[in-house]
Amino acid sequence: MQKSTDKKYTYQPSRLDAATAQHILVEIEAFNAEYCAVLDAGQVELWPEFFTEDAIYRITSRENADLGLPVGLVYAEGRDMMHDRAVAVNRTQMFAPRYNLHIVTNTRVVDVNEQGEIQAEANFLLIETLVEGPSTTHLAGLYYDTFVRSGDKLLLKERQVIHDTNILANDLVYPV
Amino acid sequence: MQKSTDKKYTYQPSRLDAATAQHILVEIEAFNAEYCAVLDAGQVELWPEFFTEDAIYRITSRENADLGLPVGLVYAEGRDMMHDRAVAVNRTQMFAPRYNLHIVTNTRVVDVNEQGEIQAEANFLLIETLVEGPSTTHLAGLYYDTFVRSGDKLLLKERQVIHDTNILANDLVYPV
Amino acid sequence: MQKSTDKKYTYQPSRLDAATAQHILVEIEAFNAEYCAVLDAGQVELWPEFFTEDAIYRITSRENADLGLPVGLVYAEGRDMMHDRAVAVNRTQMFAPRYNLHIVTNTRVVDVNEQGEIQAEANFLLIETLVEGPSTTHLAGLYYDTFVRSGDKLLLKERQVIHDTNILANDLVYPV
Repeated sequence: MQKSTDKKYTYQPSRLDAATAQHILVEIEAFNAEYCAVLDAGQVELWPEFFTEDAIYRITSRENADLGLPVGLVYAEGRDMMHDRAVAVNRTQMFAPRYNLHIVTNTRVVDVNEQGEIQAEANFLLIETLVEGPSTTHLAGLYYDTFVRSGDKLLLKERQVIHDTNILANDLVYPV
Repeated sequence: MQKSTDKKYTYQPSRLDAATAQHILVEIEAFNAEYCAVLDAGQVELWPEFFTEDAIYRITSRENADLGLPVGLVYAEGRDMMHDRAVAVNRTQMFAPRYNLHIVTNTRVVDVNEQGEIQAEANFLLIETLVEGPSTTHLAGLYYDTFVRSGDKLLLKERQVIHDTNILANDLVYPV
Repeated sequence: MQKSTDKKYTYQPSRLDAATAQHILVEIEAFNAEYCAVLDAGQVELWPEFFTEDAIYRITSRENADLGLPVGLVYAEGRDMMHDRAVAVNRTQMFAPRYNLHIVTNTRVVDVNEQGEIQAEANFLLIETLVEGPSTTHLAGLYYDTFVRSGDKLLLKERQVIHDTNILANDLVYPV
């Protein structure tokens, strides 16, 4: 288990003054609550609307991220590809019925660059409940995000989901 | 597992402008932190004070909610009924000693109507620790709330607890 | 399981007006997100920087706290002692590789005294993922904190970690 030499996925202290960071922090909390509510309600067709047209979405294990292997379980480039994925997911929900619940905490606003792009992180748990079963932590990890402003709201330009939990490649179809 | 046709428990996008929603969001986070601290400390006799006189409190499984069956594990109408319940709970704590810990996240302010009533949601985990045992997720689910203002503070006019986790009817006595 | 007679670890309602409490609440959320990001990234050498020079850090089980036994798994007085601990932890990471993820929620601002010291609480889960394994709740509990201001940022003057989960004395080396 060697540590990554890629700075992107290691701790970077926030570079913002406290007042700016706090305002954006609550904005991002509200964004993530909407994002997760859509997924937990099973309305995956609305999921691409949280991204910019050319956004990147990727799910990678912490182990691969630490080894500098960017190849992950899921890779989507652009809203169209996300939309295709959403349609495919909706058609292939053949596995056992279950409920998903996202728990998102520890939001950090790391930086805002000259173009106004916001670099932020958050911790998440994806709690899964099989019907008639207990609730368990299906996935634990971090969001590494780049947000941009579009009118008065935020959109994801990039979301990297890095999960600590080891899962089978075919075990995760649904977006996180 | 059919999806609910009742809009109440499916995803509704927030109808508020971002600035208003954010202010209320932090207010509700503070409210829920107090609410849960009372329950986790075992001071259930203080629990009715978070509600209006005529408030409704209900705990229902996601499965029943999706089927449109409003009958749940717990139903209390009005502070007096909640108070009676709190007294009963306090007298019947005969089961194995345990600690409760609420984890509340993903607060969403969905709407504020003309009467100033706030419709909001949040995700919760109820973590249970049996003495000498590990900590496990006893219950995972959502709060569907209606808040009203009373002076400078919020009160619950209605709290619907919808839990994903399947539990036995006699397994949950304590408020969530 | 008798309840504590020590008021410090039982429920105390917040004594602040809502607007003041909310502002500080987001500040503390941002602080805890940084604090946990450092620990989850394995950069324990940065951990003492979140404390004042003479701060107290303590980890105690809920059971011992309730019995009024302040002796816990970890006790550190002052940044130097924390630094020594961090160095020791870094040298002795001989156990199975694992990832840590902190989930911090339910932040409560309980009081601000005349010296400007902030008394606050938060709930936490420490999620542990053994390499090749699932993610489980290693520790669940509360932070009981005293913050002071240093320039435009907060520092911990005291952090009491009270954990519900029963763990072996030698099972927890790493700060929480």
